[in-house]
Amino acid sequence: MRRDEFIMKKNLVVGQSGGPTAVINSSLYGVVKEGCQSEEIDWVFGMVNGIEGFLKNRYLDFQKMEEEKTLEKLLYTPGAFLGSCRYKLPDDLTNPVYGEIFKKLEELNIGYFCYIGGNDSMDTVSKLSRYAAGADSSIRFIGIPKTVDNDLVMTDHTPGYGSAARYVAQTVKEIAYDASVYDSKSVTIVEIMGRHAGWLTAAGCLARRDENDNPRLIYLPETAFDTEKFVASVEQALEECPNLVVCVSEGIKDKDGVLICEYDSEAGVDNFGHKMLTGCGKYLERLIQQKLGVKVRSVELNVCQRCSSTMMSRTDQEEAAQAGMYGVRAALGGETGMMVAFERKDGSEYEMECSLQDVNRICNQEKTVPLEWIIREGTDVSSEFIKYAMPLVKGKVNCPEGEDGFADFVRR
Amino acid sequence: MRRDEFIMKKNLVVGQSGGPTAVINSSLYGVVKEGCQSEEIDWVFGMVNGIEGFLKNRYLDFQKMEEEKTLEKLLYTPGAFLGSCRYKLPDDLTNPVYGEIFKKLEELNIGYFCYIGGNDSMDTVSKLSRYAAGADSSIRFIGIPKTVDNDLVMTDHTPGYGSAARYVAQTVKEIAYDASVYDSKSVTIVEIMGRHAGWLTAAGCLARRDENDNPRLIYLPETAFDTEKFVASVEQALEECPNLVVCVSEGIKDKDGVLICEYDSEAGVDNFGHKMLTGCGKYLERLIQQKLGVKVRSVELNVCQRCSSTMMSRTDQEEAAQAGMYGVRAALGGETGMMVAFERKDGSEYEMECSLQDVNRICNQEKTVPLEWIIREGTDVSSEFIKYAMPLVKGKVNCPEGEDGFADFVRR
Repeated sequence: MRRDEFIMKKNLVVGQSGGPTAVINSSLYGVVKEGCQSEEIDWVFGMVNGIEGFLKNRYLDFQKMEEEKTLEKLLYTPGAFLGSCRYKLPDDLTNPVYGEIFKKLEELNIGYFCYIGGNDSMDTVSKLSRYAAGADSSIRFIGIPKTVDNDLVMTDHTPGYGSAARYVAQTVKEIAYDASVYDSKSVTIVEIMGRHAGWLTAAGCLARRDENDNPRLIYLPETAFDTEKFVASVEQALEECPNLVVCVSEGIKDKDGVLICEYDSEAGVDNFGHKMLTGCGKYLERLIQQKLGVKVRSVELNVCQRCSSTMMSRTDQEEAAQAGMYGVRAALGGETGMMVAFERKDGSEYEMECSLQDVNRICNQEKTVPLEWIIREGTDVSSEFIKYAMPLVKGKVNCPEGEDGFADFVRR
Repeated sequence: MRRDEFIMKKNLVVGQSGGPTAVINSSLYGVVKEGCQSEEIDWVFGMVNGIEGFLKNRYLDFQKMEEEKTLEKLLYTPGAFLGSCRYKLPDDLTNPVYGEIFKKLEELNIGYFCYIGGNDSMDTVSKLSRYAAGADSSIRFIGIPKTVDNDLVMTDHTPGYGSAARYVAQTVKEIAYDASVYDSKSVTIVEIMGRHAGWLTAAGCLARRDENDNPRLIYLPETAFDTEKFVASVEQALEECPNLVVCVSEGIKDKDGVLICEYDSEAGVDNFGHKMLTGCGKYLERLIQQKLGVKVRSVELNVCQRCSSTMMSRTDQEEAAQAGMYGVRAALGGETGMMVAFERKDGSEYEMECSLQDVNRICNQEKTVPLEWIIREGTDVSSEFIKYAMPLVKGKVNCPEGEDGFADFVRR
């Protein structure tokens, strides 16, 4: 970073928001690296705990990390290096909080504002850019997409998805090997993240060696879940495959829109008078046990899906960094109120290109798995999905090891 | 393998038994490789689904795998390649099943019998070797140890533990990063395998960067768990560490020996009239939520602990293969009724040496974490544990990838 001629130059501030992914720090790396390298940018600041922390004057600068060459460690570190928040800005742009934010931005001589996040974070970018337009501010606001759920619209896919999908595919494969050791019938139910969109659960199908391999049944939240049909499908699948593996989205619902996991919570209260809230996997485990009398186990993949550095997809890691860099260049080029999006190029080989999309058309929308990709009465996904997802999970990342022999992460 | 002079030579049979580990197939590799290379052994057979499958004439030979050079894939493949069983031989050695087994062994001209497993499998080796002694059979029986629980006696440690411990350490580290993104208090409870022995849960401490790092509290089944003290400890730890990570063994019990997870199951029955059996992690999650009113999450690491190929420890993988090879050489050298054990050599650098121990002194015993290694009123483990465990989890394994970009496993 150069601090000469700083009066002419503007600074950049970057924040992270919403739930973490395996590569949200790769996008941060992209933003910071590009910001530090740019002749037009003086200082690169990071908001600590997003816009919420920034309002409390919590921010840092990246000079030391750049000098010590530890920025690269961001490429392997899970979580959100800067800390995150779930803070929603008011809809009313005349709310004094906007004046407060812009005063702070001006005090820091900010010209460029990058926010890495999902739907809600794009809502923040939308509001700030609209306020800026009304207030004649020249600060440019750019959104860098991030979500394991892959549910952002107007982009082919989202950074964070590829790594989570790689984790799901590889882990379901390993669980299938683990589950097939005994010579007696068994059912293993794997519960996968995704409350409204089934992208991650669908990635379970990438674990298959061939069409008849496990997981034999895959249930997404996009189609209505019928417990009776489920039991019948499991019973039938067990005939052909004695050690059955089933993938279910945490968000599967019945035809009335009631979450399957809520059926479980109706069952009883615990010692403290609380509803017994467990996942749908646990509920379906008991259902199969009772109806079919076979050995059943449920496995909830939980947060490991979004924080595994060893299962990171190289494609995802590289694209996430690329999105951050592209966002900075877009801001420098005069863009504002935009989100970096991914476009898949035509052709037999996978190739991706960054573009910009109006953030106002993205925030508060949700992209779900196309219904025509969900086949066999809602128990599987089609080859179109495999063609779509396979390039995104490709490539192993060799995470450098620290002195203790474990992945060498960085903390602020 | 050479099939000339087969009348003079004897054959070897190997089986796998009990729950799988990440390296049970590495031990199988060691046995098969050594068996195929030996001048004194003609054929190497594998029992499918252990002694139970063998009684149903289910076995295979490894010639094709050796010729096709796919044996090496066993070093990376989770699950139990040969299939497993949980079959306990009768205590009464006059039971006709013994005659049946030995008849089959003689029909196959078996001279050497290797069985890879834990406590119960060593019981099988004990009984068969004792029967052989009484029946004047020259067949030699050797046990190859295996268990993620690390609870076998008379050995420094057990193949399978190092990889599971590496998985626990790395995953707890990643979960701690994931859990620390928000600027509000939170508790994450990680439930780890180990019903009677806390070795795996203790490995959570290897995730720490320094003494004051997460996981701040670690609870093993070796000491009585007191829920009131637990709540107080969590409350106190939250003061210093707002995003707290706690490790608990699945088998933690109160002073009366009642499993903590059973308290949960007393709470209610589900729609089917079944007790609501969830883990102790879920129970403690609700307890903390109710008592402290903070955000709590519980994560059950589940079977991933024992089947992750990406988190395998190279030390563990190599030692597992070594144990298999040593076992075959011991049988050829005339030993029977023995288990391969590990001895740690004195010295500042970790060095391990195989030895043999009487299987009768091992089976049906359990080695737990020494009480003097459990410190701070049962909430942590000492530096002696770290010194013990660190070498066992060392070394990353680069699992070869198949065409699909995922780990290239082998199936029978």
